Amino acid sequence: MKPSVVESSRVVVRLGERSYDVVIGRGLIDQASSWDGLRLGADGVVVTNPLVASYHLEKVRAALAPLHRRLHVVSLPDGEQHKDWPTLQRIFDAMLQAGCDRRTVVYALGGGVIGDMAGFASACYMRGIGYVQIPTTLLAQVDSSVGGKTAINHPLGKNMIGAFHQPLRVLCDVDHLSTLPEREFRSGLAEVIKYGPISDWSFFEWLESQADALIARDPRTLVTAIRRSCEIKAAVVSRDERESDLRAVLNFGHTFGHAIEVGLGYGAWLHGEAVGCGMVLAADLSARIGQIEPPIADRIRQLVARCGLPVEAPALGMERWLQLMRMDKKAQAGEIQFVLLGGPGVAVVQAAPESLVREVLSPHKATA
Amino acid sequence: MKPSVVESSRVVVRLGERSYDVVIGRGLIDQASSWDGLRLGADGVVVTNPLVASYHLEKVRAALAPLHRRLHVVSLPDGEQHKDWPTLQRIFDAMLQAGCDRRTVVYALGGGVIGDMAGFASACYMRGIGYVQIPTTLLAQVDSSVGGKTAINHPLGKNMIGAFHQPLRVLCDVDHLSTLPEREFRSGLAEVIKYGPISDWSFFEWLESQADALIARDPRTLVTAIRRSCEIKAAVVSRDERESDLRAVLNFGHTFGHAIEVGLGYGAWLHGEAVGCGMVLAADLSARIGQIEPPIADRIRQLVARCGLPVEAPALGMERWLQLMRMDKKAQAGEIQFVLLGGPGVAVVQAAPESLVREVLSPHKATA
Repeated sequence: MKPSVVESSRVVVRLGERSYDVVIGRGLIDQASSWDGLRLGADGVVVTNPLVASYHLEKVRAALAPLHRRLHVVSLPDGEQHKDWPTLQRIFDAMLQAGCDRRTVVYALGGGVIGDMAGFASACYMRGIGYVQIPTTLLAQVDSSVGGKTAINHPLGKNMIGAFHQPLRVLCDVDHLSTLPEREFRSGLAEVIKYGPISDWSFFEWLESQADALIARDPRTLVTAIRRSCEIKAAVVSRDERESDLRAVLNFGHTFGHAIEVGLGYGAWLHGEAVGCGMVLAADLSARIGQIEPPIADRIRQLVARCGLPVEAPALGMERWLQLMRMDKKAQAGEIQFVLLGGPGVAVVQAAPESLVREVLSPHKATA
Repeated sequence: MKPSVVESSRVVVRLGERSYDVVIGRGLIDQASSWDGLRLGADGVVVTNPLVASYHLEKVRAALAPLHRRLHVVSLPDGEQHKDWPTLQRIFDAMLQAGCDRRTVVYALGGGVIGDMAGFASACYMRGIGYVQIPTTLLAQVDSSVGGKTAINHPLGKNMIGAFHQPLRVLCDVDHLSTLPEREFRSGLAEVIKYGPISDWSFFEWLESQADALIARDPRTLVTAIRRSCEIKAAVVSRDERESDLRAVLNFGHTFGHAIEVGLGYGAWLHGEAVGCGMVLAADLSARIGQIEPPIADRIRQLVARCGLPVEAPALGMERWLQLMRMDKKAQAGEIQFVLLGGPGVAVVQAAPESLVREVLSPHKATA
């Protein structure tokens, strides 16, 4: 362990006895304080994939081995197409074969797919054990690792089978982002950008001003951006753990985005690419309804584009688009519920006139 | 709907905002009050199996169809050997194909297998939707349908993959028990008997005195026995929803019982047969440790035997017995945790000297 004090921040997700810290900083794996207060001692299971393991597993293993009775590693195939039951089963198989009991702690070392699968496995294993998120992608650090949403995909829809299961802790180590491929990093920026329009327009404006430093992965800028993202997410989750209503605002861009991912086939676009494009479409729809000024929608489009993310709706066919969005988990009795903007920094969950939805998705649309 | 007032009792499982009623009586399906206060209106999904459906589905369908936008039926193959992921997947497939949203209510119409699977499917579908238990076996009415434990089996252990997910309501209709095969009915009596030794010795003595009426399925006697069983279970679950400690007392007989079920292969013995025998073994172990008088263990053995349940440990081989019990979810760091009796009506979770466990399991044992 390094004795040096490294700058890090803690954001608390307040959920009563299920409260936990999101720690954001550099060199977190090596710091004893990262593991303080967790009830360790029994078996530990690191769930990861081969690529992430090649970069980060040795350091994580060195940090965790002294803290556990036994430390097991389960390596899963990489990619959204493996976020399914047979792959999940590999975690259960390994843990049962090793005789892991209910006090076992699971560590999700990887991106959103690993976090969702290790989290859902922890939710189901012996009806629920503890887990720690160690997200290694920007997208997972600012979004999927915080808030306890875990899931696997079903052929008929993304994240359809899952659980709300809060982690014991989330460790967002900015050092992990240095190995991230450029396309994945930029995809993660979509979920960072998201927090501005839905909750804090001044954060959006700060992101506009810091776009170059962000894209260049300046560590201090990243820590600030990730911390503010996690603060906003933590505040929303604390008030609505199970997405009864308020929490749905975090899905800004996701109704369109999920349709893109299913319509093109999982993995054709990265999640953040689909969400980035989805936010542009949702902002456009908000402007067409008259809830925001068109220049606000334009600025969202411009920042998404500047981060190298797609801003044009892919050609899925209009009826297919609508069919896919009716499959969304927020849909009620077949009516699509969108997360739209009620103003800059304000998100609202609402239905929308189908004629305007069709305009937004039209390949030859006029501006709002 | 029948206008007549039929005698029924309600037991409340107190869990804050997740509190719910267990209704015990006759003719419950036909009574409007059975469905009062549930947020219905969206899709309903009845999960059942062909045999149960042949007896009870039409009545349930007639009662529910007016209460839902659409009512779907998913029929699963019957039997513990189907309590697995591929069968669970059939529920998800049907619900996603039908476009069921988050407000959908699932009805588990059947025994413990149906209740566990419909409950676990409800726990996972879109990360959790509501469900109602309509248990049609005695075992499910007094045990598995109350308390929110749901699960599927894994080749390496029973109920290893699951969730704590409380139902919206439990309807224990004693009329459903009239179609139950004799062996299944007697198997259910094991879980009724259980509540005496672990919590209320006077209830055990009442059961001794009412054994003939119980075995003859006298409805009034059954309502009383089921209500008292559910009261005890509700009290335990209210104090320890997630089986951190106290709730484990409900597993009296189950450490031995689960080993029997896995060791002989799921389905060779019915669950209640394995638990009945397991209680006899656990009482014997408690007596050998000196925590109860041998006559108390004898009375438990006699009542179990009188209900036509096995009381002799099957020959699994001593080492296999111990290996199987170490796989139990209560095991800690490889040490078997038994639920034993600390006295008549008092259960304690504890380890036990392996030499005495071997005595209890020995085919040629001397009496305690």
